[in-house]
Amino acid sequence: MRIGDTWYRTIWPTEDGLAVEIIDQTLLPHFFEVRRLDSVEDAAEAIRTMRVRGAPLIGATAAYGLALALRADASDDAFEASREMLAATRPTAVNLRWALDEMAREVTPLPERERADAAWTCAARICNDDVEICRRIGEQGLLKLQEISSRKGGESVNILTHCNAGWLATVDWGTALAPIYMAHDSKMAVHVWVDETRPRNQGAALTAYELAAHGVPYTLIADNAGGHLMQHGMVDLCLVGTDRTTAAGDVANKIGTYLKALAARDNQVPFFVCLPSTTVDWTARDGIAEIPIEERPPEELTRVSGRTFEGEVISIEVAPPGCPAGNWAFDVTPARLVTGLITERGLCDASAEGLATLFPERVR
Amino acid sequence: MRIGDTWYRTIWPTEDGLAVEIIDQTLLPHFFEVRRLDSVEDAAEAIRTMRVRGAPLIGATAAYGLALALRADASDDAFEASREMLAATRPTAVNLRWALDEMAREVTPLPERERADAAWTCAARICNDDVEICRRIGEQGLLKLQEISSRKGGESVNILTHCNAGWLATVDWGTALAPIYMAHDSKMAVHVWVDETRPRNQGAALTAYELAAHGVPYTLIADNAGGHLMQHGMVDLCLVGTDRTTAAGDVANKIGTYLKALAARDNQVPFFVCLPSTTVDWTARDGIAEIPIEERPPEELTRVSGRTFEGEVISIEVAPPGCPAGNWAFDVTPARLVTGLITERGLCDASAEGLATLFPERVR
Repeated sequence: MRIGDTWYRTIWPTEDGLAVEIIDQTLLPHFFEVRRLDSVEDAAEAIRTMRVRGAPLIGATAAYGLALALRADASDDAFEASREMLAATRPTAVNLRWALDEMAREVTPLPERERADAAWTCAARICNDDVEICRRIGEQGLLKLQEISSRKGGESVNILTHCNAGWLATVDWGTALAPIYMAHDSKMAVHVWVDETRPRNQGAALTAYELAAHGVPYTLIADNAGGHLMQHGMVDLCLVGTDRTTAAGDVANKIGTYLKALAARDNQVPFFVCLPSTTVDWTARDGIAEIPIEERPPEELTRVSGRTFEGEVISIEVAPPGCPAGNWAFDVTPARLVTGLITERGLCDASAEGLATLFPERVR
Repeated sequence: MRIGDTWYRTIWPTEDGLAVEIIDQTLLPHFFEVRRLDSVEDAAEAIRTMRVRGAPLIGATAAYGLALALRADASDDAFEASREMLAATRPTAVNLRWALDEMAREVTPLPERERADAAWTCAARICNDDVEICRRIGEQGLLKLQEISSRKGGESVNILTHCNAGWLATVDWGTALAPIYMAHDSKMAVHVWVDETRPRNQGAALTAYELAAHGVPYTLIADNAGGHLMQHGMVDLCLVGTDRTTAAGDVANKIGTYLKALAARDNQVPFFVCLPSTTVDWTARDGIAEIPIEERPPEELTRVSGRTFEGEVISIEVAPPGCPAGNWAFDVTPARLVTGLITERGLCDASAEGLATLFPERVR
């Protein structure tokens, strides 16, 4: 994606090949700052503090984290220790585990002296694959948008999205936003309702930022507003990403997604989830019972960070002193509320049967 | 309600009888500051800028606003001009119109020289009636909480609430929070999940503040979190207020209420709305089609106000510069999603029939 005159991915190796660089997403939308990760500790810290976030990008960063670890120490023990440290950074997203497994599969059979280079290559492949997968998700989702656009006679298609499932959540393109970028680039009239996505405001901070940078028309709304918009026919479809989807089609995504899915169902608005198949947890079926939901620090809710009129970025307290707060990062939308899953292999029902038609090799 | 060692209502006449005083709610939870309203313009400004808010308190403030107007000029023209100015401050809440009508009914038949005193008396009566009505709502709601508490064998009853329907929204007691205060005072174990209620954060700023002041256990949550909590059995019932309820039981309340009602229905959690009957719009039936929904400035969404570490209260920008934002203040929860209405005359179904059993004199 282009920021000003420069094309960026969200993660890339440095020219000297000794480190990777990321865009520090905790500073957006106020500052665009590139940050260098020199070690597996740096990578773990970047994931934990959400300098990088979004299921696919977490996976890519973890892969490079392991590659950095192997540069320092290629032994089995060091590899396992790094793998465990990275796996513990975020419990809900399954791409993280997937990327770590993928790296292990490629690297651990090799002699120690070959591991670092192989790991570097494997991490780069994971990134390239992610870009290609997201491009295909975009193409698949575009078909759905074209269908609605043509039914509306070219009138603007109104899409509601939650959190950030754009290029900042992946290596490039995004998942839920990929079809929107392609639609906009193809001159289709689209408009995006951007849920601000409390408590971390990824909608305001990231989705608004990247849609604005690409020139896609959008309107920021409170997370509370989507139901009202749907009741009044102002949403043509919902497009969201996911951090883990079960083999039966239950979808864990940013907290609040479930509420939008309920409103979509109540108002006959199609609700689609865009995902690379690496986000499917083929071992889980019942999302509510089986997917661990990360709890994050209460300060993410009681403190808000933003820009003063003088241009300084600071944190302020919005709650009474000592206010207790609960901060669950994800919720699970049952498959019954999901109109369809949009994957790199096409669209399917959110069900075991639906997923089996597209990914027969995964059915056991 | 008590703040420290002092008992407060949210609005009261000054000792000299020439003005009224309010608690400036735009400064909570950071500062507790009393503000004097000397004129109808002051009253209208206080309502418009939400120094006072909450349907019953808006009505009470409008009543005193008219009384202040009549002090200055008791003519029919002046009365009508003030009435119109006040009616235009907030379009959704129906108590505002109700209070203005009530004042007109009492005052306009009188000769000009008697109007100011009569208006002052009528405004005081509206305030006293509101306190008594809220007390009765509290008693009615308490029965429901006792039922759940006894079913849980005394284990803490978890109540989810949205926005602020506490004493700060009324003259005293509150609507949705009144039963909770009574339950807590009667030593019942209760715990409140407080939706922060974006964009104006009335949950964090007001509900958390007043529950903390009264010593009621509570936890602040993102508006996005309620569905997840209900999926996991962590909510025993929802209690909310309303700004306008139709004669058929549709409920307009703070934006996002509808999403909680959907989640409650999906998880078999009872969803009750607490209201004085002055909040019923007996002329409306279909809330979604008939209730005007106020749109407020986009800056309420893109700017957040809070306390710096130095204790200063400032506003910061949380969205990219120039970010377009939509800010609807209310949504409508269809009667079919409401388990029951809790009024000063008891509990009834959210339906024309239900309301008719309690308010037969209003059925036409």
